[in-house]
Amino acid sequence: MALKVVTLVGGVGGAKLAHGLAQILEPEQLTIIVNTGDDFWHYGLRICPDLDTVTYTLAGLVDKTNGWGIGGDTRNTLGALQRLGVDTWFGLGDQDMATHLVRTEMLRAGDSLTQVTRHLTNNLGIKYTILPMTDSPIATMIDTVEHGELDFQVYFVKMRWQPTVKSLRLKGIETAGMSAEVQQAIAEADVILFGPSNPWLSIMPILSVPGLKQALLDRDVPRVAITPIIQGVAIKGPAAKMMAELNYDSSAKSIVTYYGEVLNGFIYDERDADLDMSMTRSMAFDTIMRSDADRAVLARKVLDWIEKW
Amino acid sequence: MALKVVTLVGGVGGAKLAHGLAQILEPEQLTIIVNTGDDFWHYGLRICPDLDTVTYTLAGLVDKTNGWGIGGDTRNTLGALQRLGVDTWFGLGDQDMATHLVRTEMLRAGDSLTQVTRHLTNNLGIKYTILPMTDSPIATMIDTVEHGELDFQVYFVKMRWQPTVKSLRLKGIETAGMSAEVQQAIAEADVILFGPSNPWLSIMPILSVPGLKQALLDRDVPRVAITPIIQGVAIKGPAAKMMAELNYDSSAKSIVTYYGEVLNGFIYDERDADLDMSMTRSMAFDTIMRSDADRAVLARKVLDWIEKW
Repeated sequence: MALKVVTLVGGVGGAKLAHGLAQILEPEQLTIIVNTGDDFWHYGLRICPDLDTVTYTLAGLVDKTNGWGIGGDTRNTLGALQRLGVDTWFGLGDQDMATHLVRTEMLRAGDSLTQVTRHLTNNLGIKYTILPMTDSPIATMIDTVEHGELDFQVYFVKMRWQPTVKSLRLKGIETAGMSAEVQQAIAEADVILFGPSNPWLSIMPILSVPGLKQALLDRDVPRVAITPIIQGVAIKGPAAKMMAELNYDSSAKSIVTYYGEVLNGFIYDERDADLDMSMTRSMAFDTIMRSDADRAVLARKVLDWIEKW
Repeated sequence: MALKVVTLVGGVGGAKLAHGLAQILEPEQLTIIVNTGDDFWHYGLRICPDLDTVTYTLAGLVDKTNGWGIGGDTRNTLGALQRLGVDTWFGLGDQDMATHLVRTEMLRAGDSLTQVTRHLTNNLGIKYTILPMTDSPIATMIDTVEHGELDFQVYFVKMRWQPTVKSLRLKGIETAGMSAEVQQAIAEADVILFGPSNPWLSIMPILSVPGLKQALLDRDVPRVAITPIIQGVAIKGPAAKMMAELNYDSSAKSIVTYYGEVLNGFIYDERDADLDMSMTRSMAFDTIMRSDADRAVLARKVLDWIEKW
C-alpha cells in the first residue's frame, strides 16, 4: 500500500515542502495540515495567510518572487480602500480578494473552515488534501518588549517583525479541537513531516490544538522535522531572531530541543555538517528549495531516508 | 437666505440631476435622498447601487459610458471569483469593491447606512449631503408573469429586465422609518425635486418609507418631478416597458397620474410639446442631460422656473 504522509506546515517554507511532496505522491497519499494561528479579520474579511499560501502554491498560482499571494495580481481594491480613508498596511491583491470573499461568505453561512478550504482547493483543481489545523478561530498573540501584546499580523506585517518577542499566546486554543479530518489523517499517517516552518509561529500553534500533540505521540511512525534554520539563519522570516529573543541558541539543534519528544527524526542542512546531531536520528541534505524541482528532490530524499529506517 | 433643495433620486438619471444641482448650489443648499430598494447582499457584501451611482457621479469618479461604476475600473476580483466557481452574473469592479468592503464592515460593526454613506462621501471629498431613504434594509421584489417573484437585481441585472412585471412589493418597508436626517431635510426644504428616475423602481420606494410621503405633503413648497419619459420612451432602463406592463399609458402624463397629489408641478420634455399638460402646473425643457454642462443648465432652468411661481 502506498505510504501516507501528513505534513504540518505554516506559510512559504512549508508550502514549498508540501509542493515537493505533491510532485512525488498521489493525491490520496498526502495531507497537509496548516497553521491557522495567523488568521485574522481585516477589511471585514476572514484572511487565512498560511492556508492561502499553501493553496496558491499547490495550484501553481503563487507569486514566485514573494512566495505568497497570486502571481501578477493587481492591487486596485487596495488603492480604492486607501482613497476611502482606510489604512491599508495589510496588502491584498485583487485576485486574492476573491478567496477572502468566498471564505468569509461561507463562514458566515455556517460552513467550517475545513469545508471552505476544500471548496476553494477543489475549485482550483488541487487534488491533495489541505486541512486547517482546527475549525476554531485561533489568534496567535505576540507579547513584545516595546509594544506589549500585539495581534500577530500587526507584529508580523505592520511592524515587520521588528519588536522584541517576550512570549507567545494562542487566543482561543483552550476551546479549540481537532476536526474529524485532522484526527483521521494523523491516525492513518505512515510518516509525519514537520515542514521547514517557523517552529514558534507556525508549528507550535498546530501542536497546541488540544489532543493533536498526543495524537502524534500515539503514532509509532517516523515523525521528522526539516530544519528552518541553516547556519544559524532563517531562510525567510523571524525564526532566528525570535530564537535569540526567546533565549534559544540560534542553531538547528535548538529546533530539536524545542520540539522535544514529538520528533523522532530530524533533517538538518548539509551546510551545518559540523553540528553534532548524534543525540537524535538525523540526516543532512541540501534543504534550500530554490526551484520547483528542488522541492521534489528534497521530498524524495527525505522519504527515501525515512523508508530505510 | 439661500434656497434649500431636496431631491429624491434613484440611479443614473437621478444622479445626473443631482450633479446638475451640485454644480449650481452650495453644499448646505442640497440634500439628495436616494432609493435603497435596489440594495442587496452579494458575494457577502452589502451593495447599494443607487447610493454608489450618486456618490461616484458627485465625486467625479463615475464611468461616463455606463453612468454607474467607476471609470477605468478593472474586474480582476470578479475573474478570480469565477475561477473559484462563483456565478458572477453581477459585475463589480475592483475599485468599486472597496466601497462595498468599507460599507459592509461598518454596517456589521453597527453603523447606520446614513453614517456609512457620510463616511464614504466625506472621504471622496463630496460636500453635498447624500442620504439613504431609510436606514432599514428594504428589498424591492418584482412579481413577474414568467418567473414569479424575483429579487430586484435578478430581475434587473441577471434577466436584464426582460420578464413581464405584474406588481412590485417592498420587503421590510412596514417596519422601516425615516432617519432624523431625512426628516430634517424635508422639513427645511424650500423645493422638493423628484429626479428623472424610474417612478416605480426608484421613487416609489422612497415615497413608501412610512411617514415620508406625508412629510412631503405637509410641506407647502414646490414639489416638482422631472419626467423620465420622453416621447413615450425611457432615456434608460425599463420605465416605459414597466408602464405598459402595469397598464399605464406610456406617456409623460402617466407619471403625473402615478405620483398624484404628492406633486404640484411637473417638468416634461420639450420634445413632448404636443402633450396637453394643462391640468397641472408644468413646464417643458430639454431634459436630456448629455454633458455635465447640460445637467447644470437643466437644474438652473428648473429652479428659475420654480422661483417664479
